[in-house]
Amino acid sequence: MDEVGRQARWERRTELPLAVASLVFLIMYAIQVLAQGLPGAWRDLCAAVMYLAWLMFVVDYGVRWRLSGQGLRFVPAHKLDTVVVLLPLLRPLRVVKVYEAVQRRHGEPRLSLYARVIAYAGVTTVLLGFACSLAVYDEERGAPGTQMHTFGDALWWACATLTTVGYGDVVPVTARGRVIAVGLMMCGLALLGAVTGSFSSWLLQVFSLESDRRNGGGPSED
Amino acid sequence: MDEVGRQARWERRTELPLAVASLVFLIMYAIQVLAQGLPGAWRDLCAAVMYLAWLMFVVDYGVRWRLSGQGLRFVPAHKLDTVVVLLPLLRPLRVVKVYEAVQRRHGEPRLSLYARVIAYAGVTTVLLGFACSLAVYDEERGAPGTQMHTFGDALWWACATLTTVGYGDVVPVTARGRVIAVGLMMCGLALLGAVTGSFSSWLLQVFSLESDRRNGGGPSED
Amino acid sequence: MDEVGRQARWERRTELPLAVASLVFLIMYAIQVLAQGLPGAWRDLCAAVMYLAWLMFVVDYGVRWRLSGQGLRFVPAHKLDTVVVLLPLLRPLRVVKVYEAVQRRHGEPRLSLYARVIAYAGVTTVLLGFACSLAVYDEERGAPGTQMHTFGDALWWACATLTTVGYGDVVPVTARGRVIAVGLMMCGLALLGAVTGSFSSWLLQVFSLESDRRNGGGPSED
Amino acid sequence: MDEVGRQARWERRTELPLAVASLVFLIMYAIQVLAQGLPGAWRDLCAAVMYLAWLMFVVDYGVRWRLSGQGLRFVPAHKLDTVVVLLPLLRPLRVVKVYEAVQRRHGEPRLSLYARVIAYAGVTTVLLGFACSLAVYDEERGAPGTQMHTFGDALWWACATLTTVGYGDVVPVTARGRVIAVGLMMCGLALLGAVTGSFSSWLLQVFSLESDRRNGGGPSED
Repeated sequence: MDEVGRQARWERRTELPLAVASLVFLIMYAIQVLAQGLPGAWRDLCAAVMYLAWLMFVVDYGVRWRLSGQGLRFVPAHKLDTVVVLLPLLRPLRVVKVYEAVQRRHGEPRLSLYARVIAYAGVTTVLLGFACSLAVYDEERGAPGTQMHTFGDALWWACATLTTVGYGDVVPVTARGRVIAVGLMMCGLALLGAVTGSFSSWLLQVFSLESDRRNGGGPSED
Repeated sequence: MDEVGRQARWERRTELPLAVASLVFLIMYAIQVLAQGLPGAWRDLCAAVMYLAWLMFVVDYGVRWRLSGQGLRFVPAHKLDTVVVLLPLLRPLRVVKVYEAVQRRHGEPRLSLYARVIAYAGVTTVLLGFACSLAVYDEERGAPGTQMHTFGDALWWACATLTTVGYGDVVPVTARGRVIAVGLMMCGLALLGAVTGSFSSWLLQVFSLESDRRNGGGPSED
Repeated sequence: MDEVGRQARWERRTELPLAVASLVFLIMYAIQVLAQGLPGAWRDLCAAVMYLAWLMFVVDYGVRWRLSGQGLRFVPAHKLDTVVVLLPLLRPLRVVKVYEAVQRRHGEPRLSLYARVIAYAGVTTVLLGFACSLAVYDEERGAPGTQMHTFGDALWWACATLTTVGYGDVVPVTARGRVIAVGLMMCGLALLGAVTGSFSSWLLQVFSLESDRRNGGGPSED
Repeated sequence: MDEVGRQARWERRTELPLAVASLVFLIMYAIQVLAQGLPGAWRDLCAAVMYLAWLMFVVDYGVRWRLSGQGLRFVPAHKLDTVVVLLPLLRPLRVVKVYEAVQRRHGEPRLSLYARVIAYAGVTTVLLGFACSLAVYDEERGAPGTQMHTFGDALWWACATLTTVGYGDVVPVTARGRVIAVGLMMCGLALLGAVTGSFSSWLLQVFSLESDRRNGGGPSED
């Protein structure tokens, strides 16, 4: 019980700093990718802040592992945390977690389940799409035969990919760019599933409510 | 109660004029985009009618805000209305609302829930697709490197985008055209969700009815 | 009652001839489109058989209208029949109806609801895809700038469209070809909805059965 | 009963050897397609191992047919097995079956229904995507006008196809490559259905649990 208490306290205290570090990481990464003309000293500063933010996540991961007292079973039980520590690109996924925690602190969530699913899916998609655009743009820039000349092209490509439209006017041509792209496609597939699934279950709910109303209360009446 | 009554009366009275204004706005916009050879005087008339229609929506928005007595809370509570006042392109979304109101006035809706969802999704999609085609065509026309030479090309692009097929033979190349396109893609994603979700929940209904019938009436029999 | 009896008898008797006519129409259309080198006399024979098949549908439509005694209300109540009489391309949709009738004649349908939905969606999609490929190939053949050189290209395009993949390596470029293509896209959207919806509701069923089994019978046990 | 017992024993005993043969077949096929510079003797060895693996499946199919005592009704009742014996490319589908059997042997499945559906869909998709990439790459390599120059291109194409994104920068151009591609598209459609359907039904479950909790237990309380 003491273990659990210490773990919960640690998570409550590190919540806000980690969320800030997460956003700082993304902003620093964006600056490093987009502001090519930056003087060397500033670029070094950016990189330093980025690694600092990363270090914070690694330390947090280590402390929570220690506090959990689970030994090696901690890694498979915290898949998302592990992936996020290894791949700084997926850092935005943590923001969703923070958002959830903030909601919980304010008592009952005010949004309905469907609105929350749509909100999570939307926030995750926007942040991941932005991060992937940065990463792919960084890989593709200057590659021979690429059509991705500006960051706007990268964003346009990310939108077409996430909605599974896939025009194909701008596509990654480097091997590493394509690997990131495949990750984004899967994310798009999941987004589609979330939107469709939410709509489908919301509709079923509305319908059963409506048929209840018509029957004068339905199953609860007899 | 008096406030609510005055608000309801206002909405009932402005319903038809606003629906007409909405269609007039779309038609005037279409004329302005497509009829390039029109003499200047006629073009000015079109623009004047357009701004008049817009003014009607702004006035309606203001009056309803006033009558609601909600102060600043009115804006987040009427998201769709606010967006529609700011972005004249999304005006068609209001048509759905009117359609709903007309249905309600004729007593019980005659269509089932699934048919209504499909009908709303269809009407919204057709109107939004048409409006976005106009807007994108207006942006892309004459842009260097564009494949969108005629309004037919723009319509063809809009259809391929809304169904998430995305051939990519005709794509927007200007920044503003692409921003509108991203909006249309999201609309396509929602349309897909509506169609799939409706089908899914309709199927579940049919199935539960069928299994009820086989069991000799099911819950209503005991 | 007599009216209904005569109508039912008419439908039972015309079922098989109309199904045969439907397939003959599609085959004749395919011959006319694909066998360009055919001598004039044979082409005329094909056209004659096609029109004869069409005439059968028109006569059947007229007789059923007469027997229904519904007057003008017959047209909106038989939307699919009306569309099929006007657009010979959509004739394959009737095959599904025949399939249903044959199943019913053999007593209880042996397939489950999900299998039937998948089977109908599959048969309709294959027949419509084939008919649309023929029609689009007929329009596109020889159009300036087209990539659709053989009927194989048209079939490849139809598959990529129906699954909403939309590569865009082969696309219709003529106005009439594109109109048919938009119809096929919508069909693909509906197919996606049918597949996803069936899967979703089947899964929900399996799950509720499984949770019933674990609870030792669930709601029916108490 | 004896028949069933002998059949079950046969299936239990052949499970592991067939799974190994299935993976060996895929690996040998990959070597044959990708290692073009291999000396003739090694290539012959690969082919021999492949045919041996295939032979094992044919023998297994024959023995099970014999043991079932079903005569010709065995073929329609074991569609997947029949297809897998005829098309070695679809061999990976058997891996899923083995995975299921292994799970069952360890008592109750530890994963929830949704996790299992996602896991099956994921494993099947990865294996089928890999097998189809190999087959299409084998067909397309060296075809005039192809953009599929390396196996990496083939994998990239398979990913874009399975997620129904379909950029169209790399597409099969040969007839046989396109036939395989159509199969992969359908697989992508099914994958989309599985992801969307799982999400949709999971959401419905969560929602009904949540509303039960709010109502203080719901239907099980009275």
